[in-house]
Order: sequence, then structure tokens, then C-alpha cells
Amino acid sequence: MALEKEVQGGVEWRVTVPEGASAVVEPRPVNGWVDRVPAWLKAPAGFGRKAWLIGADDPRKVVHGLKVGAALSLVSLFYYTRPLYDGVGGWAMWAVMTVVVVFEFTVGGCLCKGFNRAMATVAAGLLAVGVHWIASRAGETAEPVILSASVFVLASAATFSRFLPAIKARFDYGITIFILTFSFVAISGYRVDRLLHLAQERAYTILIGVGICLLVCVLVCPVWAGQELHLLVSGNMEKLADSLEGLVEECFMEDGSEEGKQLPSAKSQGYKCVLNSKASEDSQANLAKWEPPHGRFRFRHPWSQYLKVAAAMRYCAYCMEALNGCVASEIKASEKMKSHLRGVCVKLSSDSSRVLKELSSSIRSMEESRIIPCLVTEMKNGAQELQAALRSLPEQLSAGGAEETAAGGGRGEKQTVTVSLMEAMPLITAASLLAEVSERVEGVVEAVGALAALARFEPSDRKKASSSVAPQDESVTPQREEV
Amino acid sequence: MALEKEVQGGVEWRVTVPEGASAVVEPRPVNGWVDRVPAWLKAPAGFGRKAWLIGADDPRKVVHGLKVGAALSLVSLFYYTRPLYDGVGGWAMWAVMTVVVVFEFTVGGCLCKGFNRAMATVAAGLLAVGVHWIASRAGETAEPVILSASVFVLASAATFSRFLPAIKARFDYGITIFILTFSFVAISGYRVDRLLHLAQERAYTILIGVGICLLVCVLVCPVWAGQELHLLVSGNMEKLADSLEGLVEECFMEDGSEEGKQLPSAKSQGYKCVLNSKASEDSQANLAKWEPPHGRFRFRHPWSQYLKVAAAMRYCAYCMEALNGCVASEIKASEKMKSHLRGVCVKLSSDSSRVLKELSSSIRSMEESRIIPCLVTEMKNGAQELQAALRSLPEQLSAGGAEETAAGGGRGEKQTVTVSLMEAMPLITAASLLAEVSERVEGVVEAVGALAALARFEPSDRKKASSSVAPQDESVTPQREEV
Repeated sequence: MALEKEVQGGVEWRVTVPEGASAVVEPRPVNGWVDRVPAWLKAPAGFGRKAWLIGADDPRKVVHGLKVGAALSLVSLFYYTRPLYDGVGGWAMWAVMTVVVVFEFTVGGCLCKGFNRAMATVAAGLLAVGVHWIASRAGETAEPVILSASVFVLASAATFSRFLPAIKARFDYGITIFILTFSFVAISGYRVDRLLHLAQERAYTILIGVGICLLVCVLVCPVWAGQELHLLVSGNMEKLADSLEGLVEECFMEDGSEEGKQLPSAKSQGYKCVLNSKASEDSQANLAKWEPPHGRFRFRHPWSQYLKVAAAMRYCAYCMEALNGCVASEIKASEKMKSHLRGVCVKLSSDSSRVLKELSSSIRSMEESRIIPCLVTEMKNGAQELQAALRSLPEQLSAGGAEETAAGGGRGEKQTVTVSLMEAMPLITAASLLAEVSERVEGVVEAVGALAALARFEPSDRKKASSSVAPQDESVTPQREEV
Repeated sequence: MALEKEVQGGVEWRVTVPEGASAVVEPRPVNGWVDRVPAWLKAPAGFGRKAWLIGADDPRKVVHGLKVGAALSLVSLFYYTRPLYDGVGGWAMWAVMTVVVVFEFTVGGCLCKGFNRAMATVAAGLLAVGVHWIASRAGETAEPVILSASVFVLASAATFSRFLPAIKARFDYGITIFILTFSFVAISGYRVDRLLHLAQERAYTILIGVGICLLVCVLVCPVWAGQELHLLVSGNMEKLADSLEGLVEECFMEDGSEEGKQLPSAKSQGYKCVLNSKASEDSQANLAKWEPPHGRFRFRHPWSQYLKVAAAMRYCAYCMEALNGCVASEIKASEKMKSHLRGVCVKLSSDSSRVLKELSSSIRSMEESRIIPCLVTEMKNGAQELQAALRSLPEQLSAGGAEETAAGGGRGEKQTVTVSLMEAMPLITAASLLAEVSERVEGVVEAVGALAALARFEPSDRKKASSSVAPQDESVTPQREEV
């Protein structure tokens, strides 16, 4: 993406790869071993290097590969062991197919596909047997007509139903298998007489395949989609918090400081992860609904509320994108004016950032944070201070103008004020956007509050809360008693 | 999504459904026939209504369902016609399976899956026969060990390779089929002696299935992913243009006007489509690369450049989201100040909007627009006028203040100026954001320029250009001669 290309200069960047996971793509070392490899070997070498990086970043992906291999080897036992082979017969290949197609990275994905495959096979098999029974009563000539027509109608209707979002999200794979099985049984039923036997054998082998998949998937280093979603949302919130602080720091950086020459830091660009992770969140929430209770997640954990939290975060991130635009357009405001606003802006951003970090750790630990209301109050106070600072800006403008043109006449003074306001414009915009971001952070607080209520987060013990986030000044401590 | 819920009040809203298309979900009529249906029938009735709406919005989806039915009926001919049945044998079910699995909504999707399936089957079949040949030389005991080990290693490696984004995007389905075919041939090769025959038959039937799919998909009302992407991008650009105009109108609406009581209009919320359509654009661009030249799109049409145009548009849309936040927070600026900025802001927004609309029609007609440079110059002039208006704002502030507190002393006047600046703050922010949007529109102009160069858009004839966009004042006309 064009936007992502802007981040340069040795920055580590987490990209969202289509299947919903995310991988860290490190910058290439300029004088690494890659340069010493002959040119014709570079493509595969680069490829191998990428694979190595992906594996090193998330070893569970390597384990997933090995799990699929193991599940397939288990299934092939049906072929190599004679008693089993005699039992299931030549249909064991259906079990192989099931394992290859159903095995997914997350337990939720595996369960979703397994359930879809099993249910769709049974439903379509029964329906096909019924249609076949009716067709067989209709006589020699009518039989293929009835069968063909039923395949045509059912396949058309089922294919169209995939365009309904509700069906698409949960039963997409099931629809494919439904059409497949129905066509198989209906069409081949015309030739193969042992129709029920065929349907039965398919069902058995599919159950064996699904069973092996689930066993391997759940017992060997399971990856839970719910857990992934949980970590993704809380991690993104942490990034959003860092990013907000980073952006405001860059915005109000002192002109003389050496940091000013750096490109936007990785820290301040973290909000882009929030902008880009909608697709992974949606798919993970979808899969998480299939998973049984696991770890700290009970039955009916409110997975869709995570999507609302994520939407509220994205709502902040849009505003931060605009703020980033302000940082990029060089701010030429005088140092004096910057220093007038710097204090309040940095305070508000660090307040908002603390709220987000506290929310993130509250989600991660699944404990209701006691200090959130205090932090929110602090943040609101910060926003009011910012308003006050903006309110006193005209005085600063005239004062600054008066100083500079002390020797000038009345007209000169007015012009200086004009120029100063123009200079201050990006600063004012940045400050307003910051205020807007802090307002939108309240939306995140609400969404997380709803999540805490729905998921019944435990109240954290006070001792832990006070040690994890030490109050910065005494004004916070008395308030905590009221909450 | 929480964000989408905000749009209410009889608004037509285009939602992006997971498979990459988009559907119009109309608001429910309050006293429609749905209310007269008994409660237990409401769920299926609502379902049927939704299906009807989707079908009515895009009849091609209904046609797609019928096409799948037709393709399956064609394949079933292999069963019902005896000479064909004798030729292909019981393996015809592989052709059925291929049709069900490969048939996709767009030609690109069909080609991508068909190619993947055919190539993966051939490659895995050859490899499996080779491994089998080696294993058969190794003796009775070693044979199953070698076969099992090869399945384990290849399945693990192939599964892991799916985590590489480059492989995932193009060959995800191929990898599944590769593992499937290799396991089939390698495992069943232990029992079935006619190994080559097995591989050959599978290949034939798959080719038959893919052939039928492609024939039906291309010959009956084809849906081209490239065309869809083309229309999606140009349509979204149009929406962005409308949305920009709508937002600025709402922002600078006169306080007394009745429109002020309306909720945000559908027109002004169109930018949300741009924010939400990344996933569909990515998948369509991916599939478009598989398609042969069709319609006005030549071989190697630069599909990935569309993604860059879309990214530039999204970059504008982020800023417009922040602008929308300004509109939402009630602007209490005095009518006088509003009217001071209204003219320039509305002009700049309509200039930017004209640029976007011209770009959109240039993309849609695939003709290079001659008037774009003039429109961009106009837009830049508009931005400078806005700057000038902002520059003269302090005068307005003091003048306004002086009028109101004519009777007050010196201190009273200063306070009024302060209050006025605070009042003007959201206006100033909105104006700065508008300036930022118009700057980002230049990024869209660049991206579309690159697209025009890469896709070799034809220069439009002058007559058509001047009739389609009539110049608003004479300053445009002389410039056009220079371009």
C-alpha cells in the first residue's frame, strides 16, 4: 500500500497478511549475506529468508505445518493397517480429503469447517436419498429428468444463498459441501444401487477425518481464534496509546532538537495497524464464536463486543491520521507559541494514552480497572486545560506581536498578529484534533465498559491497581475513594 | 459496525459483504407488508425479503446461481449419456466436484481456481508417481515408511508456505489441491496398482470440469473482476466527491435554515464506502490479474495501480472522517464569521469535488482528461483564497468584537476577541482540514495520472471535454489552450 510505503528508515512494520494473522517484516540489512549470493539464487534465497522470518516471528505457524503432516500420517494409517482398511474400504480417501480441507490454523476455523462439512454432508445425503426415492417411483423416463431438475434447482438456490451476508459468514463452506454431496448422491445414485450404503460410508469417513483433525488441532499446541482476537485488540490499543503520545511529541518537538531530523518513528505510526486490522478482527470474531469455552473465556463470551471496541479504536485512529497530516506539514509556529501549548497538549495526550493503556491492560488481564474513572476525569481536566490554553492564545498572539514590533506603529502590530495567527493555524488544528481524539477515547472507554459488563470481568484488587499505575499527583488519590 | 449505525433516517447504505461485492440494504418501510405477517413467519419472511433485495439490486447474482445449476446439469450428462459414461467411467464425480468447487462469481476467480486446480493436480500427480517409483524400489518394509515420510514432509512444507503472503494471494487454493492430490496418489498408490491410470483419469476429469466451468462462466453473462474493480474505484471516487461537497455544506449551513435539523445526509456519508472497501479492492485486483484482455482492458492492464488510486482516495477519506467529526460537534460560530469563510470553503470544496468527478469520469471513460490541469490550478487558487480568508480572520474577530462591545472598555473588547476565537476554533479546524483534503486530492490526481500513463488512456477530443464540464468562469477557458 502507498500509505505503508511512507514508513521508512529501519522501521519494523507489522503487516496484515490476508488470512488474518499478522507478520513482522523486518527491513533488509544493507550489507547482509543476501548480497553475497549470486543473482540467480537471490529470488529463492529471499524467499527462504522471508519464510525463515515468518517462522521465527511466530513458531506456531511452523507447528501448524507439522500438525497437518501428522494428521495426514494418522489418516494414512487407514490404508497401511489391514484391519482398518478392510473396515472402511476404499473410501478412506474421503477421510484424507477431509483432513486436507478442514484443517485450519485456529481451533475455531477447524470446528467451523468440520461442523459445516459434517452437517452439510448429512443434510444433503438425506435430501438426495429422498429425492432419489421419489424419482425412482416416477418411472424410467422421468427419473433422470427429476434428478437433473432437482440438482439444478437446489444448486442454483444454494449458490444464490451465499450472497446473503448472514449465510456467507457462517455457512459458506457448508453450502459448497451441500451442493457437492447432493450432486454426488443424486447423480451417482442413478448408477450405483447401494445408495444408502454410499451415503453412510461417506458420512463415516468424513466423521473419522473431522475427528482426527479436531484431536490434533486441539491437543497439539492449540491456537484459539478467540485468544488471538483478544490479544490483537488489546495489543492494538497499546499501539494506539503509544502512537498518540508519539504523534504529539513529534508535533510539539523543539525546533533545535536533533530528533527533529528523524523520520516519523515506528512508535508514532502504530495507529496504522488499527486502521488495517478490520478484516482480521472480523474473521477471528466469526471463528471465535465456534469455539468452546477455553482458558479464561467462558461459554458465550461476547466476541462481537470486541468488534465494537475495535470500531471505537478505529474511530480514534481516523482522527490520528489527520493529526499525522498536521505533523507532516511542517509547523512553522514560533517557539514561544509552541511552548505555550506544548505543556497542555503533551499532558492531554499522555492522559489519553494512559487511559488507553489502562483499558488495554484491563482487557488483557480481564479485570475491571478501578482507576479508569479517575483517569478519564484526569483526561477531561486535561481537555479543559487545553481549551483554556487555546482561549488565552489571542493574548499570546498580541503579546508576541507587540514584543516583536515594539518600534512599529498601530498598523504594524495588527499585521504581526495576523501573521502569528496564520503561523499558529496548524498548531490550533493539531490541538483541536487532539481534543477530538480524547473525546473519541471516551467512546473506547464506553465500549470496553460494555465488554467488561458482558464478559463479567472480575474487579481487580486495589493493591494491584495502585501498584501498576502510580498516581502522578495527589489530586488523583482522594478521588479514587469516591469511585 | 458502530460507525455505520450512525447513519439513520431513511438512508440508503451500501454495505460491503464479505465476498467483496457490495449490496444496498434499504431501510425497512415502517408500515410494509412485513408487519402483517404472523410472528413465527417473520424470520423466514425477513430472510426472503433480504434475498429479494439482493437479487433486485444485482440480478447478476441470481444469474450466477442459475449458471452453477446449468454447469452441474451439463456435467451430469456424463452420467446419463451412456457413451460418455463408458468413456470417463466412475471418475465422473471428480468432474462434478471440480464444477462445484471451481465455479466462482467472477471470471478471474474461476480462472484462478481452475488454473490452480489443474496445475496443482498435474504437479502433485507427477511428484507422487516419482516418489512412488522410488519407494517401490526400496523394498516391502521401506515402502510405506518412505511414502508416509514424503506425505508428512511435503504436507508440512506446503501448509507452511501458505503463510507467505505472495503464495497466499495467488496459490492458496492450489496448495490445498497439491496436498490433496499428492496424499491421494501416494497413499492409495500402495493399494491401487494402476497408479498412472489413476492420475491420468483424475487429470482428465478435472480438465473436463474446469472446461465446463470456464465455458459457462465466460459465455453466459460474464462478470469480470477487472471491470468490477474499475467500476468500484470510479464509483467510490464519485461518492468521495459528493461527500466532500455535502460535508462542507453541512458544516457552513446557515443557522436558520430548515436543513439544519436533518441528520447527516446519505450524500455526505459516502466517504465511508471508501474507508470500508479495501478488502474488496484487494481481492478484485488479485483476481483481475488472472483475466485475459476483455472489453476495453488490454493485456497487462495495470490493475495494481487501481489499488494505489484507492489508497490515495482512502487517504482523503481519513481526513474527511475528521472533518465529519467537526460537523458533528455543533459549530457555534457567529453567523458573521461563518459567512466570512463560507464562500471560500464552499468554493474550495466544489473545486476539489469537480477535480474528483472529472478524474472519476476520466477513469470510467478511459480517456485522458484535458481539463484536469486547469481544474487543479483552480483548486490550488481556491486553497490560496481560503488561506487569505483565514489570514484576514483576526480583523474580522476584532471588528466583530468591537461592534458588539462598543460601549465596553478596553478590557471588554479583548475578552470578546478571546471568546470569538474560541467560537471560531471548530470553523478554523474545519477549514484547515478542508485545505488538507484538497492537498490530498492532488495525491489522487497523481495516482490517476500514473494509471492513465500505464493503461495508455486515449486523449479525449476537445469538443467532448468542453461539453461535459462547462467552465464556470472565463478564467478557465484561456488556460485550456495552454494545456
